[in-house]
Amino acid sequence: MTQINQLISKIKASNADAAWISNPINIYYYTGYKSDPHERLFALLVKSTGERILFCPQLEVEEVKASPFDGTIIGYLDTEDPYAKYKDELNTVLIEENHLTYRRYNELKSAYQLQEVRPVDAIIQEMRNVKSQEEIDILAKAAELADKCMEIGEAFLKEGVTEREVVNHIENEIKAFGVHEMSFDTMVLFGDHAAAPHGTPGDRKLKNNEFVLFDLGVIYQNYCSDITRTIPFGTPSDEAQNVYDIVKQAQLAAISKIKPGVKVSEIDKTARTIISEAGYGEFFPHRLGHGLGLEAHEYPDISETNDLLLKEGMVITIEPGIYVPDVVGVRIEDDILLTQNGYQSLSSYKK
Amino acid sequence: MTQINQLISKIKASNADAAWISNPINIYYYTGYKSDPHERLFALLVKSTGERILFCPQLEVEEVKASPFDGTIIGYLDTEDPYAKYKDELNTVLIEENHLTYRRYNELKSAYQLQEVRPVDAIIQEMRNVKSQEEIDILAKAAELADKCMEIGEAFLKEGVTEREVVNHIENEIKAFGVHEMSFDTMVLFGDHAAAPHGTPGDRKLKNNEFVLFDLGVIYQNYCSDITRTIPFGTPSDEAQNVYDIVKQAQLAAISKIKPGVKVSEIDKTARTIISEAGYGEFFPHRLGHGLGLEAHEYPDISETNDLLLKEGMVITIEPGIYVPDVVGVRIEDDILLTQNGYQSLSSYKK
Repeated sequence: MTQINQLISKIKASNADAAWISNPINIYYYTGYKSDPHERLFALLVKSTGERILFCPQLEVEEVKASPFDGTIIGYLDTEDPYAKYKDELNTVLIEENHLTYRRYNELKSAYQLQEVRPVDAIIQEMRNVKSQEEIDILAKAAELADKCMEIGEAFLKEGVTEREVVNHIENEIKAFGVHEMSFDTMVLFGDHAAAPHGTPGDRKLKNNEFVLFDLGVIYQNYCSDITRTIPFGTPSDEAQNVYDIVKQAQLAAISKIKPGVKVSEIDKTARTIISEAGYGEFFPHRLGHGLGLEAHEYPDISETNDLLLKEGMVITIEPGIYVPDVVGVRIEDDILLTQNGYQSLSSYKK
Repeated sequence: MTQINQLISKIKASNADAAWISNPINIYYYTGYKSDPHERLFALLVKSTGERILFCPQLEVEEVKASPFDGTIIGYLDTEDPYAKYKDELNTVLIEENHLTYRRYNELKSAYQLQEVRPVDAIIQEMRNVKSQEEIDILAKAAELADKCMEIGEAFLKEGVTEREVVNHIENEIKAFGVHEMSFDTMVLFGDHAAAPHGTPGDRKLKNNEFVLFDLGVIYQNYCSDITRTIPFGTPSDEAQNVYDIVKQAQLAAISKIKPGVKVSEIDKTARTIISEAGYGEFFPHRLGHGLGLEAHEYPDISETNDLLLKEGMVITIEPGIYVPDVVGVRIEDDILLTQNGYQSLSSYKK
């Protein structure tokens, strides 16, 4: 596992004794073992010496043994204290400040006599930001399946169908392509209902001459896709069409700027300026996009305030939107891979 | 909202200035507004004075206004510091130690000059443990829909069908009954594959004369059901049938002891003793059950070490299991409501 070795080097380089990984997604990233035993302790202790210790409920031990993880397994029963089953003293430990709860922090501190904790979040983010070729291949397939969902959804549109019916149809039909899970609740919103950027699909019926907003993605081999299309059903009003054209122009302009070395904030600014100059600035109330990988939303934030430089191997979404209350909501989103000299769109449904 | 008023009384009674609720499920419980903006701050500040302040991303403000929440809304843009938009000084704050991350704890502490934090977790647990009549009615309906899933799944069993196909069939068909989401990944495991208590449905084909384990539940009006049945397909081996009979006997015996005032550990012990005396103690590696409500797994733990007294209005699962590697896995689980003098099973599929 290249990833775990890289982490061990970084632990050494920060003069820490260990990292305590508590986010199940990051545990999967470093071990190849996927689980989420909720309120039960599930954690990976990675020591600067190279030792790796996975704490998990006793009833998962056999599955861990069958996984790629080859470190020490500490299984515990619900009646046992997991920390007591692995004795150690750790001076400085890197923790996931964005994941470790206040309670687990205190448990850990007292179990291993911690003197100091420092965040490991940025180290993990930086690693996960840059995808390996294997991860890129999986993400490309996930995006292709999202395109397929769009095709299934668009073909199902007809007057009188409800948002919820379109969602169900897509989620049912995509199973035949091997998809067992969507990366988030599929969103299908009609006409003015799409003006709530995080609306919930319901019994709203499709009328002629309105836009349909689809925001969806699938999980493929644990990796996510996340795309949005806003599609005309019939001929929407001139105002709605105008909003669509502005969003599309903003999205294409932002994407065209993507290449290694460019500031993330520059990309956001490109789209935001176009929308503001068209007079819709106040109706674009969210960041331009986000990283994509094991999570549908991950680092980096593609926002005005993030001056991170884009790097080869990143996969990000670009999704400007304009939401005019009671009129129309339009968002267009693609999954974009940073290549050596520019970008490649992993999603390709027509827009 | 009775619940929020009860919380305010408890904040006063603990001489704290406020509670900071960060778990989106608890925010729903106290506000009627459901959301989960992931990495973005989403929190409910409840003050001993009765004031309630909800922090949410700006793009959710309209939805919050349309929800039952009638306190102050602090919407913020991705580029703004949410804490800076609500100025206050809070001496003692109750926090969710099991949910608040180390990072948010530090942010909160510095934003409002906290001098002391204490846990609010047990207070919320205690409130959520005892369901209102409205919650009970919803949970009963959720359990009824889980029974319906069982009926759909059992009718679909045939030689050669795969676990995954049965899962897909159930999840597709139950949509016609208004279910949009399962309460966790539906589990259907055949024969010896069910011996991994947390196995994943795959391409294993159903053979004649083996057991099929179904563990499933639905979300109905935000509340969960969670039931398990292990059903013979043909005539399983004598050993497998014997294991089944022991689990059923253990489950019925445990359920029969349920009434207000009884210790939770007593209920666990009743089932565990029967299984141990039959010689299968080591193959029952998990607690007997758990609370059920807005989450599929919530407090209380129904375990050997929990001496909590059962109370009218609780809803718990009772799910003993025996998993003999390479032979068979059996678990039987019902959703049980504590009534004034005993119990009522909300699930009723044959066993």
